[in-house]
Parts: sequence; structure tokens; C-alpha cells
Amino acid sequence: MGGCSSQSCHSCFFEYQTERMIVVKSKVVGSVFRLIQFLIIFYVIGYVCVVQKSYQETDSVISSVTTKVKGTGFTNTSDLGARVWDVADYNIPPQGESSFFVLTNMIVTPNQTQSTCPELPNQSTICMSDSDCLEGSNDVRGNGIQTGLCMNYSETVKTCEVLSWCPLEIDINLPEHALLVAAEDFTVLIKNSVTYPKFNFHKRNILPDVNSSYLKQCEFNRKTDPDCPIFRLKDMVSEAEEDFQTMAIRGGVLGIIIDWSCDLDWPEHYCGPKYSFRRLDNKIPENNVAPGYNFRFAKYYKTTDGRETRTLIKAYGIRFDVIVFGTLSFSVNAVCNWFLLTCTKRRDYYSKHKFTYLDNIDDNAGEPVSY
Amino acid sequence: MGGCSSQSCHSCFFEYQTERMIVVKSKVVGSVFRLIQFLIIFYVIGYVCVVQKSYQETDSVISSVTTKVKGTGFTNTSDLGARVWDVADYNIPPQGESSFFVLTNMIVTPNQTQSTCPELPNQSTICMSDSDCLEGSNDVRGNGIQTGLCMNYSETVKTCEVLSWCPLEIDINLPEHALLVAAEDFTVLIKNSVTYPKFNFHKRNILPDVNSSYLKQCEFNRKTDPDCPIFRLKDMVSEAEEDFQTMAIRGGVLGIIIDWSCDLDWPEHYCGPKYSFRRLDNKIPENNVAPGYNFRFAKYYKTTDGRETRTLIKAYGIRFDVIVFGTLSFSVNAVCNWFLLTCTKRRDYYSKHKFTYLDNIDDNAGEPVSY
Amino acid sequence: MGGCSSQSCHSCFFEYQTERMIVVKSKVVGSVFRLIQFLIIFYVIGYVCVVQKSYQETDSVISSVTTKVKGTGFTNTSDLGARVWDVADYNIPPQGESSFFVLTNMIVTPNQTQSTCPELPNQSTICMSDSDCLEGSNDVRGNGIQTGLCMNYSETVKTCEVLSWCPLEIDINLPEHALLVAAEDFTVLIKNSVTYPKFNFHKRNILPDVNSSYLKQCEFNRKTDPDCPIFRLKDMVSEAEEDFQTMAIRGGVLGIIIDWSCDLDWPEHYCGPKYSFRRLDNKIPENNVAPGYNFRFAKYYKTTDGRETRTLIKAYGIRFDVIVFGTLSFSVNAVCNWFLLTCTKRRDYYSKHKFTYLDNIDDNAGEPVSY
Repeated sequence: MGGCSSQSCHSCFFEYQTERMIVVKSKVVGSVFRLIQFLIIFYVIGYVCVVQKSYQETDSVISSVTTKVKGTGFTNTSDLGARVWDVADYNIPPQGESSFFVLTNMIVTPNQTQSTCPELPNQSTICMSDSDCLEGSNDVRGNGIQTGLCMNYSETVKTCEVLSWCPLEIDINLPEHALLVAAEDFTVLIKNSVTYPKFNFHKRNILPDVNSSYLKQCEFNRKTDPDCPIFRLKDMVSEAEEDFQTMAIRGGVLGIIIDWSCDLDWPEHYCGPKYSFRRLDNKIPENNVAPGYNFRFAKYYKTTDGRETRTLIKAYGIRFDVIVFGTLSFSVNAVCNWFLLTCTKRRDYYSKHKFTYLDNIDDNAGEPVSY
Repeated sequence: MGGCSSQSCHSCFFEYQTERMIVVKSKVVGSVFRLIQFLIIFYVIGYVCVVQKSYQETDSVISSVTTKVKGTGFTNTSDLGARVWDVADYNIPPQGESSFFVLTNMIVTPNQTQSTCPELPNQSTICMSDSDCLEGSNDVRGNGIQTGLCMNYSETVKTCEVLSWCPLEIDINLPEHALLVAAEDFTVLIKNSVTYPKFNFHKRNILPDVNSSYLKQCEFNRKTDPDCPIFRLKDMVSEAEEDFQTMAIRGGVLGIIIDWSCDLDWPEHYCGPKYSFRRLDNKIPENNVAPGYNFRFAKYYKTTDGRETRTLIKAYGIRFDVIVFGTLSFSVNAVCNWFLLTCTKRRDYYSKHKFTYLDNIDDNAGEPVSY
Repeated sequence: MGGCSSQSCHSCFFEYQTERMIVVKSKVVGSVFRLIQFLIIFYVIGYVCVVQKSYQETDSVISSVTTKVKGTGFTNTSDLGARVWDVADYNIPPQGESSFFVLTNMIVTPNQTQSTCPELPNQSTICMSDSDCLEGSNDVRGNGIQTGLCMNYSETVKTCEVLSWCPLEIDINLPEHALLVAAEDFTVLIKNSVTYPKFNFHKRNILPDVNSSYLKQCEFNRKTDPDCPIFRLKDMVSEAEEDFQTMAIRGGVLGIIIDWSCDLDWPEHYCGPKYSFRRLDNKIPENNVAPGYNFRFAKYYKTTDGRETRTLIKAYGIRFDVIVFGTLSFSVNAVCNWFLLTCTKRRDYYSKHKFTYLDNIDDNAGEPVSY
């Protein structure tokens, strides 16, 4: 585009420059040339449009999950006696959110009151006399506020006395077998609705062909019942290649991953929930520090004389986290669209989708499209 | 770049090849040429920079949501008598997180104790004699552990006895009108702070022009009070094109979607929260299996003789999920920036922003910038 | 590609057109030409591959967080007397999820029962006689249902009587110093496992070199103990440039941000959790409406005659939200890969990673790779 310097700018402005071309008339050279051209076009359409989908418009999912656990367990311990556990007892929190916990093992300390008792013995709490204990001292790893006295913890050991919820929990004797053995047969109904607002695409994991009577008796099975949204806890843990009863002793976190990734360039019945299961907390044997999952909670009571007592429960169990992800994609590039619309048999499907998403984009409060 | 094979590589290295050009001096051809050039430049600036924003730098939102529900309801049922419900009663969980639940309907089963009672009658529990019941049997859809006895459930029906929390909940008589009618007039204050860490952009949904006295009496209205962060529950449900009292009977999930998508290429007051409301659980009438939202929880008491009793509540209600999303974008491409900085009137705004985000990028712990 | 119009299409198809080239043999022109070529190549490799990473494949993180707070506090108030608080008392919800709350201040209203009492005095509740009160009236900002009577609230003020949980909470006297002073020394163990499913990359924040005995006594410190996953609450608040005791009075929300962004193009030990802390709720002094974080919850009791009483607690405290984010990236472009594989010293590392992620992509249920 040079060559303008010695001329007036006006004349330069209306110049048009182009390369001088050579035309080679040869079947061999021409064939090679056309082959290369064809390969480039093939690459663009085949790789860019179909494989890489560089020109797709995508949207992220808005998801809503509710869960409901069913099942009853039975325990018989010295602390609690014979006892039946139903969902209101073992499902914490009870709200049926996307993360739910099923109690499988526990250490129960009933009838705690605000009072004083000797600390659990360890290096820093064992004492010989009151002078070893500091009144008001409050160790972050201890169980209460020291009173300054040294008391008999057992016949052989003396420890500093603390003001605390007494008697203290002794959590070293975790049952070797999970208490709530029946938990492996509990089931959970997972209801998951997803919305891709940009495309006004709405779908739920209870598919249109699932009716109430099927839902009352079905159970998810990857081969026989892949659409049933009711999962047996043991099956989910097995799919993550874990053993339920082993995991139930010290607890853990299991991910229920629902993948709604859909490509509207493919027929719509391919666009359904894909379930997978994965243990999310650590279980590497060679670095097994701080394993499992547990937390403490208490049930509070008042005695007839108005004093507060509580039952402290150190709850071990499996937390199930429902993780929903997905991206909806749809070709929007002119070239790719033209190619896909004219050259594939899914022409009608495409045209429908295109107009659907253009027309209904602000119509999302009406009846969700049932595809 | 061929033609080097027969020469020394050194000589070849310093060769410069260029196309031979033809210069056409014609006002017609030149005009067409310049027009095409102009269209290409226009496309690059107009489409790429302004419409597609291919060169924008983006950042995802870090969000914090707290909620607080206000309002008092009154119920008068045979189970509970006349009773006032305040937020500590109907708001479960009480923590004011981004997902909160308002109880609207319920089935209450008071004074349950661990004991035995005949199962609810259905195909698998109805029995003629003890031989129809299997001691220790524990159906995942049942309510307890069978004792092996066949007992009178009513004068006409016998069912297998179970060890369970008795009396059992009878959940077939869900009130046809939501019990907590007043819930539609409850209000919720939503506090939402967002941060885009990459741009050190910090904003909350309580805008700078909102003062305490306005906040004490305002209520969100899309036309008259679009900035008030206090929402009447009924209004939110209406915006999602649902009827509150209908939804309140069987429960549901309502999404409160706050969109903070901002484009800093536009004046800053365009960058505020945009609220929308959408029912998230299913409500397609033709596939109405497993509708609504409910869960069971219990309040535990101890009698004077130390036995545990509980009140079981099957809670129906509306779960509100606050969903915050947004992407902050800002042109960073040199060409686009130059174009936008020099050719638009928002020059000062741009320059300010550029230097703001470059200077303050690590200064995020100080006073949040109030824009 | 013009020039075909006057010939048969067949002959045209096999034509090959190319530009006529000029070869300039000049060391000066050639040097400039090669320099420009070099700069372009340098730009492509240096900027595109290394800086912009346009050709990297990325994956988003799947994360699991569990938390456990430790520590004991002591309060001595007129409402509750001397009292020790342990984790089951002050940690709400107790489930050890990614969002946990530590109670630091409170207004306790014990022994509430369903009864009638005069409303708290304000503009709309103060009355002179019964005619100022409307039976059944239920103000959304009030505390109950009006009975229609006007009662003495104090010796000088009369207010409308309401049916409510009485006595009513008086929340204007928030303690000026946080009650649970010791909370600043509480610690929290955060266990965080992340998975990048596409790369089968699995890592946790308890690094392989951390053993149980270290974990029992360590505490996070950016300089001395950057790998310890146990955080003192006060330290986290300080890192966010806030004062714990000030924040503890009215409550707030603190974000614990764990960044797992990793670039597998760099040696693997760079890929660890990066912690940062940031106050998420508002604290702009000039717009300090609706500050802090609090919620109400109740503990329910039954008296010996079967009546329900409750202790209402307006809980102020700090909610800690653990926010995990990250993107794993890995060069996949052929040019960039070739460049990086052959020209950098991290050749072996690269090759290993490439084959690892290609081979193991579906092998994710086995032992997590310990890198």
C-alpha cells in the first residue's frame, strides 16, 4: 500500500492495488490445489463447527434441589436403650436441601449439666496438686474453664477441675461398627429442576414418562432404572467405589454429581441428567490425618426445677452433597448453522429451536416448555 | 518463500520476497476499494468492540447474602390450640442465610414416644394374624421395626405392629387451605454485598441513597420503590406468576435471582442489582408427580420421669433461594480502548476507571470504593 | 480466483493461481524482513502461549469443605447466670459445613409462653384507651395479634395488648461489649478437598507433609505455618483488616477465600491452596444502615403441665463463609506445547502430565493421584 508519498493524497485515496496473479493450467497442480482447498473447508466445518464448537452460544444452569430421605433404623445401646430412628432423628439438617446428612454412628453423652468435673487426662491437664492448675485458664483444646482445683479423675490419675457441661464426653471409644447399620438401605428422593434462562430451557430430573405409581416403588439402577430419581444410599456409595459400612464408622462426604450438559445441536432426548458419584473428602491411606466427618450437636431440656440439661451427640455420618453442573450450548455461527441446518437431517429440530429461543426469551414466567 | 534450494542458505536468509502489485488509478474502483476498507474497519470497531465485546476482561462475582424475615401469624388447630407464630417458629433454618424457608402449612403429631403401635394400613401392612407379620422386618417405606404381632388398627382393619415413635403421623389429611394464611404479608430484608476482586469493585444492594428511616417503612415495588431491599413474600410469588395461597398448601421453591452483571464501559449508575423471581421446582400440570416441598422435623422434650417425647412436624412451605450471579466486564483491548476513549464522551469516566483498577488492585482491604 | 467466466467450468476447476513474487537480494532489506518475522514468531510464542494462554484447556473445581470449631467460652449475665459455652452451644448450624456461625453476642429472653402482654411502645402501638386498638390487627413490624385492649406498658405509657410469646424481647439494650469475649481465641479446622474431574486432579488442603502430631498443635501463620489448616478466628478477622471485638458486637460475615487456581505448565508444588480473608458484609461508615449480622432462634421446653415455653435468643455473631474457587489450566495447543515441551527444562514434567491426564481420565474412582 506504499507508493503514495510523492503524489497528492487525493489521487492516492482512489488508487486500488492488487497482487498480480499467475494462472497455472495443469490438471496435476490444479488437483493438488483443489484438494488443499477442500481440506481447509473440511477442517473448518468438521473440526471447528462439530468438534471444537468454537462458535456455540452457551448458558450456565440455574438449579434447584430438594431431597427427602426415607427409612427407619434401630439401635440398642447402654446410653439410649432400644430405640428406633426415623428421618426426623437422623437427618440433620432436616430441610431437605442439596446437602443432607445421614447419621450412622455416634457417641452420646446424656444428662450433661453446667457444673464442675475433672478434665480428661492429657499432658497439660494432669496435676499433682492445686498449684498445677490455674483458675480461669481456658485452653482452646480443653473442655472448660479451670477452677484452680486438682481432682481425682480416676483412682490413679488427678486432673485439673473445669467448669463445663459435665459429665464430659469421652470420645475415644467410637463404636467399631456403625450403630445405624440399617442406614445403607435408606433411600433418598432427589428432585432437581434446572433452567437455562438464556434459552428458556426448563427440565427436571423426574422425566415426563415417570408416573406416580412408578415413583412409589422404583429405585435407581444404571441398567434397569436409569431414570428413577430414588437412590439407595448403599448403591451410591458403591458407585463411588467405597464400602458403606466402612465409611459409616468415621463418616465422610459423598458427592452426587448431576451433569446437565446439553448440546441442543443433538436430538433433545440426549439432554437428560447424568448421575455420577464420587467420594469428596480425603481417603488417601498414606496421609490419613483428620479422617472422616463428624460434628457435635445437643438437645436441650429443662428439669422441673428449671435447670437446663442437655444430651450431647457427637454425630458421625455421611454428608451427601448434590452438585449440579452443566452448560447448554447451541451453534450460532452463520457458517456452522448453515452447514448443520441444510446438510443434516435434524433440520426441523434446529429451525424449531432457533425460533423458540428467539421468541420466548422473555416469556420465561409462563408454562415451562416441556421438552 | 521457495527458491532457496539451489543457493546457499546464507544468501537465502537475507532475501526479501514481496508480491508484485498493480496500481489501478480509477475513481470508481478506488471508491469501491475504500468503501470495503471502511466496512471492514467499521465491522471491527462496531461489532467486535461494541457488540461482541470480544476483548473485554471479565471477573466473576463473590457474593454474601443475609436475610431476615419479619411478621407474625396466628393459627387455631385442634392439635395446638390458639397459637401465635413468630420468626423463630416458622423460619427454618433460622440463620438468615441465602436459602430460607417459611412454614405455611403443617401436619403436627404431638406427644410421640418410643413405643409400639399398629402400622398405617396399606397393601403390605394389613394382616389377618401374627403369622402375616415378620418380627424385625424393616420396610424402607414403613414407619418402624415390626414386632411380629398383628393388631387392630381400627375396628375393621388389622395391621402389623411396629416399634416406632407412636402415635404415627397420619399425613393424608393435609389442610386444604394453608394454615399460616398471614405468611403472604410477611416481609424479608435481603442484604447482598458483591465484590469483583479483580477490579476491586464493591457494591451492596442497599444503595447509598437509602437511609435508615426509608428502610424502616419501605417495601419493594418495581415502579415506585425499585431500590428497597425489603420484599413482601406475596409480591415475589406474584412476580413469578404464581398464586401464594395455592403454593402455600403443598409448598415449593422460589428463586430470588439478583443479577449484578455490569459493563463498566457504561456509566456506573447502570450497575445495580436487577431482581427477578422464578419458581424453581416443577409445576408442570401434566407431569405433577411428587409436587411441592416439605420436610419433617421434631422438637424433643423430656418428661419428669426422664422419658423422651417429641412433637413431629411435617412442614410444608416455601423455600426461597437467593441466587446471585453476574459478570463484570471492561474493555481492555488496545484498539477498542483507544476508540472508546477518544471517540466517546465518556472519556473521563473511562480514564478514571482504568487507573482506579490498576492502582487499587491490591488495596482491597481498605475502605470499599463507594461507586 | 476470477477469470473463469469465459471458460468452461471444468477447465477452470483445474487452474491454480498464485501471486507473482519479487525477490529482493539486499542484506539491509533482508535483515529488516527477518527481524519482523522473528518479532511475529516471538509474539506468538511469548505473548499468546505464555502470557495470554489462549490455547489452554481449563477445568472448574469440584470442592468439598468441612469445618470444625474448637474452644470454650464463659459468660456471666443476669439472664443466664454463670455459664460455659462449648461448640454445641455457640456453633449454629452445627453441621460443620462450608458456612459456619460463631455466636459472640446475644439478647436472651427466657421463659416465654404463648400469652398476652402490652406491645413495645412506638408510634403505632401507644394508646389512650381500648378504642385505639383493633382486635385481630397484625402489623408486620409488630410482635403479635392485637387483642383490642389498651394496657399499661409502664407507669407512664400504655400500649395495645397483643397475643404473642410473652414477655416480649427488648432488643434495644445490646451489650456494648461482646459477651463471648473468648471467641477470638477459638480455632477452626478447615478440611477442603478439590477435584478437577477433566484432569483427574485431586488434592486436599492438608498437604502430604502434614502429620497428625503437627495437626494437633499447629496454627495457621502466613510466615511460620502457611500449610496448617487450623485458623484462629481473631487472626482471620485481622487479615481482613477488621477488629474482632468490634465486629463481634453487632456481627458480620467474613469470607475465607481458598484459591486453587493452578497452571499445570508450572511445577506442581506451586499448586496449593492460597488463603485470603475479606469482610463480605457492608461496613462503609457513611452508609451504615442495617449493619451487622444477627438472627433469632429459640429453644423449646415443656413444663410439667404440658405447656410449651421457650428461650428466645437474638444471636449476634460472625458467619464465616468458606469460598473455594479455582481453574486448572494446561496448554493443549500444538505449537505452544511443542515450544514448551522442547524449549523448557520442565520437559519430563509435561510429558508425564500429558499422559497422565489422557490415560486416567476415566479412572477417577481409584486411588486419587497424590500429586
